[in-house]
Amino acid sequence: MPDKTPRNCDALAKVPEATILRLPVYLNRLKALRARGVVQISSRELAEPMNIKAGQMRHDFHYFGNFSRPGRPYEVEVLIKRLSEIMCLGNSTPYVIAGAGLLGQAIANYSRFEDDGFNLRGIFDINPRILGMTVHDLPIRHMEEMPAFLSSEGIHIGAIAVPPSAAQDICDQMVAGGVRGIWNFALVDLSAPEGVVVQDEFLSVGLMALNYKVKAGMRE
Amino acid sequence: MPDKTPRNCDALAKVPEATILRLPVYLNRLKALRARGVVQISSRELAEPMNIKAGQMRHDFHYFGNFSRPGRPYEVEVLIKRLSEIMCLGNSTPYVIAGAGLLGQAIANYSRFEDDGFNLRGIFDINPRILGMTVHDLPIRHMEEMPAFLSSEGIHIGAIAVPPSAAQDICDQMVAGGVRGIWNFALVDLSAPEGVVVQDEFLSVGLMALNYKVKAGMRE
Repeated sequence: MPDKTPRNCDALAKVPEATILRLPVYLNRLKALRARGVVQISSRELAEPMNIKAGQMRHDFHYFGNFSRPGRPYEVEVLIKRLSEIMCLGNSTPYVIAGAGLLGQAIANYSRFEDDGFNLRGIFDINPRILGMTVHDLPIRHMEEMPAFLSSEGIHIGAIAVPPSAAQDICDQMVAGGVRGIWNFALVDLSAPEGVVVQDEFLSVGLMALNYKVKAGMRE
Repeated sequence: MPDKTPRNCDALAKVPEATILRLPVYLNRLKALRARGVVQISSRELAEPMNIKAGQMRHDFHYFGNFSRPGRPYEVEVLIKRLSEIMCLGNSTPYVIAGAGLLGQAIANYSRFEDDGFNLRGIFDINPRILGMTVHDLPIRHMEEMPAFLSSEGIHIGAIAVPPSAAQDICDQMVAGGVRGIWNFALVDLSAPEGVVVQDEFLSVGLMALNYKVKAGMRE
């Protein structure tokens, strides 16, 4: 009997948003464990320091096939590989950043993205004082060049780190260039055509969650 | 009969991590709706654009009391106020940032935190070339001043945006200064004493989630 369980990101299964957001958290945790030399780990030891129930984690994994064996610990390396496949992180995924202000530059220099399989290919701005300056070994290019750059390089992911008033225009330009996924730091609602994913990023979520835990006297 | 339902962040109820992380998302969404002039909204209209089920959202709210009325829409303004109370965002909460590199400065200038009730009070570094420079109207102070500054100002929240190798030392200094909550951007595991909350921030979660959705052909 053929196995119809979805096995990777090509799967058409509708996976809940919460699961999609937890998979990277699991992967980050596993990489931290690997860095400490941990080779095997039980689902409980893996899940609980993240304040996630082991059953919830196994349930998340289950969307992608049954890759735990009852009573056996996970192999850290195997699970990293498996989650990376599920999330399609195996090949280096190119992306660009629109906006080379502090936030855009901080994103460009954030070391983790390369470890996680992303490859920054371009950074764009309109400020003539910074055009041509180098960020993360890339020249800051003029925003006008962005759509053609995106098409010719076949890039499907773009981060928007421009002021709110400029964000929709940049979004439209990215879409014109063939972007299918927009990582929106601009704190404004963006309209994108059907088939283009907009992922809003609010840094304040982490700070608010921390504040809540501190004030509620919770202990992680 | 007294109402024993926990009503705000002083509640001792153990609220799941996932709920704590969704509350700020709801609040952000509601503020965006308010900015567009929306006054009332059904739970479904509120939840679905976030890719969250209305039942899940109501369940999250339920940890803090029963503040929906069957068949009646939410009042946007009332719900913002209620969620802000639950998350203890009513009074301006002071915090500091350790590390005034690109990421530290980007955090300092992130406009949203003030809207959400946080007040940056200090930013610290060790790089002599930037000490005394102004970020978000604050002078960059030497890291050595941080513990005394934290105690004298009564600050309980600190963000760590320093290189991984320095992060544990900074964490210890924050704890010595009375910090109860550490927002950790340093991509390294931190040890903190019982009673101190460490919230690890991985920007890559958003990028990985976006990548997954694009490649899985999902549409938000």
